[in-house]
Amino acid sequence: MNTERSSARALAAVFSGPGEPFRLEEFPIPSPGKGEVLVDVSCSTICGSDLHTWHGRRQEPVPCVLGHEIVGRIVTFGAGAPRIDLRGEPLKEGDRITWTLAASCGECFFCIRGLPQKCEHLFKYGHSSISPGREFSGGFAECCLLNAGTGIVRLPDDLSDALAAPANCAVATVAAAMRLAGPVEGATVAVLGCGVLGLTAAAMARRLGAKEVVACDIDPSRAPFAKRFGSGIFCEPADLLSDLRDLTNGRGADVTLEFSGSAAAVAGAFAVTRTGGVSVIAGTTTPGGKVEIDPNELVRRMLTIHGLHNYAPDDLVTALDFLSTSKDVFPFELLHGESFTLSDIEAAFASSSDRPGLRTAVIP
Amino acid sequence: MNTERSSARALAAVFSGPGEPFRLEEFPIPSPGKGEVLVDVSCSTICGSDLHTWHGRRQEPVPCVLGHEIVGRIVTFGAGAPRIDLRGEPLKEGDRITWTLAASCGECFFCIRGLPQKCEHLFKYGHSSISPGREFSGGFAECCLLNAGTGIVRLPDDLSDALAAPANCAVATVAAAMRLAGPVEGATVAVLGCGVLGLTAAAMARRLGAKEVVACDIDPSRAPFAKRFGSGIFCEPADLLSDLRDLTNGRGADVTLEFSGSAAAVAGAFAVTRTGGVSVIAGTTTPGGKVEIDPNELVRRMLTIHGLHNYAPDDLVTALDFLSTSKDVFPFELLHGESFTLSDIEAAFASSSDRPGLRTAVIP
Repeated sequence: MNTERSSARALAAVFSGPGEPFRLEEFPIPSPGKGEVLVDVSCSTICGSDLHTWHGRRQEPVPCVLGHEIVGRIVTFGAGAPRIDLRGEPLKEGDRITWTLAASCGECFFCIRGLPQKCEHLFKYGHSSISPGREFSGGFAECCLLNAGTGIVRLPDDLSDALAAPANCAVATVAAAMRLAGPVEGATVAVLGCGVLGLTAAAMARRLGAKEVVACDIDPSRAPFAKRFGSGIFCEPADLLSDLRDLTNGRGADVTLEFSGSAAAVAGAFAVTRTGGVSVIAGTTTPGGKVEIDPNELVRRMLTIHGLHNYAPDDLVTALDFLSTSKDVFPFELLHGESFTLSDIEAAFASSSDRPGLRTAVIP
Repeated sequence: MNTERSSARALAAVFSGPGEPFRLEEFPIPSPGKGEVLVDVSCSTICGSDLHTWHGRRQEPVPCVLGHEIVGRIVTFGAGAPRIDLRGEPLKEGDRITWTLAASCGECFFCIRGLPQKCEHLFKYGHSSISPGREFSGGFAECCLLNAGTGIVRLPDDLSDALAAPANCAVATVAAAMRLAGPVEGATVAVLGCGVLGLTAAAMARRLGAKEVVACDIDPSRAPFAKRFGSGIFCEPADLLSDLRDLTNGRGADVTLEFSGSAAAVAGAFAVTRTGGVSVIAGTTTPGGKVEIDPNELVRRMLTIHGLHNYAPDDLVTALDFLSTSKDVFPFELLHGESFTLSDIEAAFASSSDRPGLRTAVIP
């Protein structure tokens, strides 16, 4: 944040609703309270859900500061704020970090059952309306105030801001999907939807030992991306079943991972999963079409279906480990869109909207 | 079998198709081949799937000998047949046993992935057409020839034939459902369908420490049964959601178990499962109505759905252990229908059809 211009104030891009321009406003920099951490934002990337909100396809309370894929540096710790990160490593002022997209209480019904993302007192960055003193709650701002119950990870020097920021949402969600899918060593994995999540999933499945990764998208221009992210085969939806049957003696995919958000793709994921296979559905977070399933098929084919929304803190660690060990194997830079300053945030959203397969960065 | 009347022949009730009377026929008693075991049948119970076949609601190759819930005594072992049971305990001639409802090869794609019930070379008792020398392939006969790859369990003396026979199908399937559901200690469990499987599931969930078991059936006359099998609450489908909400601070059931086979109940199971909960669907094994699901709900509620068909051998051991430790806790005898001799098998099926919530026994 611009501590030279004003030692006590910082900028935030305030979103007031679809069709309304962002307003760049200065607010007093908060002092972190109990368990809180103040962070100087280095980079935030625009997630698909930010775009959904911007377009009005999903409703968020306004006014708010969007953005939850964030990298920053620790400015100050509030009283009792954690001095160790999710790996158990020490945290200090100046450390470059990312953090879980939500803060959870750790004590409620869902938290103690391993679902912190469904915490009864959940706070999600970039999804809350601002109020006096609580303006810095999203990524598109010069600073961010981390709530108590946020899982922090210190970033290794060899992970760039642009690579690390989406770890906090896209890559960690993929890590959660792979956790739900179970071991994929030797498996045939089908990935539906070749945006950032799908491509990351293809790469992660390959790194975890999948025998083959079949990537599927309605847009054939995604094929070269899919190939470079570990898919041996790319196809359009109409060919998915036959391609998988050819590969698997007619059985179908061991694991299907749905990231497109299309109801047809969800139905397709169920249809191409082999008997006893696992289908993880993660792409649909806005209301849309329904999917018909046949209970007799579900039973006789012994399908396992997991709906997935967000992730647990350990998945963020898995995501960052994956990026560290895979950044030289897969061309993640191909997923980077343009970079904009905070004052150009309107242009950043327009660019991101035009290129939904890329992560556009906003750098305060 | 009647070894006095004819030392070399035994009776089987041959089913030729829906609407055709059973034919009681004598066939030569086979000598067990490699890996096979010849068993003298003591008792077989009529399963819902036998009734489906008898009524013509499901197709089986005919002529066949129905029945797969079987208890018998070992007559002779073929060469190389297993001399230990699924618990690793020794087996000898005269031992009273039950066995997995299917024989599997142990080597195919599905067997090595923990799905022996989907073995590529599966043989299911009571589901195969008979051929010369292979007539004794089902329970409604004086003897049964166990194929290689059948998992056998020696029965403890304190489990009666009538109690042990359904273990081989109904109780083991419930054990598989509970395995898929995961730990239920402290959980609120909803059981949909209060036939033999549903009541057994209610009892097993309670034994495994469920805090509450809510049983649901369209037939209110099942209420007293449900109560005696561990359900604190019985309701009809229209009240299931509100009853569960009252119990769970509005969240819904941690685990839902669907055994009714009704498409409406499958939809109901999904609807009443809490965020992050598990729904095991096991009741539908005949074609029927479809169920509509909302991908946005599946994702945001993070549902896990398991289709279940049959079980793995270890589930049979779990089922028998459950019966041994629970037979004095729950009134399993209430689930026993009438008993018939093999020559009265027509009457046995008619009785079972009239009382689908009970297990009718056929005793050669």
